[in-house]
Amino acid sequence: MPGKSSPLILYPGPVAVPQYVIDAIGQPVVHQRTAAFDAFFEGFQGDLQYVFQTTSPVIAMPGSGTFGVEAAMFSLFRPGDKVAIPAMGKFSQRWVAFGMSLGLEVVPLGVTWGHAFTVAHVQQVLAEYPDLRGWVLTHVETSTGVAIDLEEIAYTIKQAAPLQLILVDAICTVGIQALYTDAWQLDAVVAASQKGFQNPTGTVYVAVGPVAAAALGYPEAADYRDLGHYYRYLMHGSYPFTPPLQMFYGVKAALGRMREETLPVLWNRTHAMSRYFKEAVLETGASIFGEGNADALTVISYGRCSHDAIREALLQDHQIETADGQDQLQDLIIRVGHFGPVSMADMQACIKGLKAVLKKGAQ
Amino acid sequence: MPGKSSPLILYPGPVAVPQYVIDAIGQPVVHQRTAAFDAFFEGFQGDLQYVFQTTSPVIAMPGSGTFGVEAAMFSLFRPGDKVAIPAMGKFSQRWVAFGMSLGLEVVPLGVTWGHAFTVAHVQQVLAEYPDLRGWVLTHVETSTGVAIDLEEIAYTIKQAAPLQLILVDAICTVGIQALYTDAWQLDAVVAASQKGFQNPTGTVYVAVGPVAAAALGYPEAADYRDLGHYYRYLMHGSYPFTPPLQMFYGVKAALGRMREETLPVLWNRTHAMSRYFKEAVLETGASIFGEGNADALTVISYGRCSHDAIREALLQDHQIETADGQDQLQDLIIRVGHFGPVSMADMQACIKGLKAVLKKGAQ
Repeated sequence: MPGKSSPLILYPGPVAVPQYVIDAIGQPVVHQRTAAFDAFFEGFQGDLQYVFQTTSPVIAMPGSGTFGVEAAMFSLFRPGDKVAIPAMGKFSQRWVAFGMSLGLEVVPLGVTWGHAFTVAHVQQVLAEYPDLRGWVLTHVETSTGVAIDLEEIAYTIKQAAPLQLILVDAICTVGIQALYTDAWQLDAVVAASQKGFQNPTGTVYVAVGPVAAAALGYPEAADYRDLGHYYRYLMHGSYPFTPPLQMFYGVKAALGRMREETLPVLWNRTHAMSRYFKEAVLETGASIFGEGNADALTVISYGRCSHDAIREALLQDHQIETADGQDQLQDLIIRVGHFGPVSMADMQACIKGLKAVLKKGAQ
Repeated sequence: MPGKSSPLILYPGPVAVPQYVIDAIGQPVVHQRTAAFDAFFEGFQGDLQYVFQTTSPVIAMPGSGTFGVEAAMFSLFRPGDKVAIPAMGKFSQRWVAFGMSLGLEVVPLGVTWGHAFTVAHVQQVLAEYPDLRGWVLTHVETSTGVAIDLEEIAYTIKQAAPLQLILVDAICTVGIQALYTDAWQLDAVVAASQKGFQNPTGTVYVAVGPVAAAALGYPEAADYRDLGHYYRYLMHGSYPFTPPLQMFYGVKAALGRMREETLPVLWNRTHAMSRYFKEAVLETGASIFGEGNADALTVISYGRCSHDAIREALLQDHQIETADGQDQLQDLIIRVGHFGPVSMADMQACIKGLKAVLKKGAQ
């Protein structure tokens, strides 16, 4: 419609993609077996290692976050391995189901949606299952807003059992809130393009530490989800398939800006938006769903009312797009993202819009 | 470097990406559970069905061509299934290796690199293996320039055994040269974004006909390469994972232009470039490697000399990028693509450059 501007997108990913990223995607293609590709790919590794805070290789693949976690689970674990997977929402439940389909012996760790898996839970599991092969931990569960205390949980695991593999779904935290792959002794960490990296959905990144690397196989046949392929090729700076190079261009442009800003400054800026928004939303009479400190999103509940109606009014009257609840939380929550290409002013606009919608509804 | 223009890219994919595609990729993100997404996705289906020449659903996934073929092989066949896979180059050999890793009983059909698998071969296989479950056929093998007579081969198979599944790697033909999914009774056809669709590498497309659809399972757990997921979701216009929406925007823009031009006109235009280039290159004293009529590329051989040296001179003196030979053909061939965003003038420039390089080398 003429004169109508695009709405403000406040999803907890995919986020709006800045124009400089689109421009970067438009850079000329180079063939993967050329010096130009090698030079690009080496710089890209350096930038990825910075945002993951690791000196280990970071594998880059086409796919969404789900594919990255699947590929890591498939590549690090073998059928029969006992793997602990706390389920705290739609995505972590997906890892449970996928683990079972791989033939893993998944240790059932269901946590009520909205609640966090804790260090106390970890200690119970370690005592009860001494023969665990590893863990699949979701740092921030995008469907419920739950954040776990990943640093303390990983510390507890590694103090007790240094060789248990810790695989982290950090799709909603890398480039958003503090995560130190090496310092926290995380063995494999997954991030996706459409969250902290402010890029189109479609590429996924897996940092692979030394203990995880030792668990990778030496695949003979091509198998797209086998990290062993990517890892062996990465060791000499190359790529096993036709790489999604132009998508990598876009991500590299965003990583470059993140390095310029520096991660601590970026994390603090995001945290400030999250803190402001959470406090302001509580003042509107909402409660916040999801334990822990997720800086990526706030999950809002106004109790027994249609949350989709509130979201629709926010969009129609204030041109602000928010995300809905999924599965058992449908219509029961509103999810608002506050990372990537959004500002404190956007948060203030959302609060102002929410207040107006609530006031109108109450009349 | 200032003043230096980008080289002319004549790879047989990835091809140079036109600016209008980049602009389309930059369109605002919409969430996958919105009416805006539904409307886009429905139109996208229609465009995909047109280029595949099918009324069946076309599944769209992140990944390169390899992932599409793997996902189709994984989803259509079961361990122990007897599957015929002619290997005529690097990529079709990859399907053989992947089939074996899946536990398929792969019927060994090695053809010398450069030669095509023929209707006569098909008849032999049909006679010898009456219990075949299906075929994996590579329409044009990008590594060797070989094209099979897909129409006749598929006709021969379906006349003899209508329920044998025909899975086609058409990565180097969809949107390039004639392919009719429905009329040729192809059960599953794979195409990738970076070839005929003139887009960045990173998304892959699989047309799934009714016989193939009947072979898909009803997966419970998420499994990224299980076409059953995508198919069931597609049946009600939705998507099982976070879709690479902005990559789809780019592909849709290109498909729209292909519909405007119409496929027969596009095919004829590409064929004319291919025919001109092949005739002109023969006049330079080259022979053409790879049997059949591949319109996507010409594979050039000047006998015993360094073809990488010729390619390097073409790039340095004439700013023309061509592709090298892979594996056993390394340094023995030059591969030139002539589809997508290239013109007859580009073909003429390449021939002119080749002649100059050869003349200089002969002096």
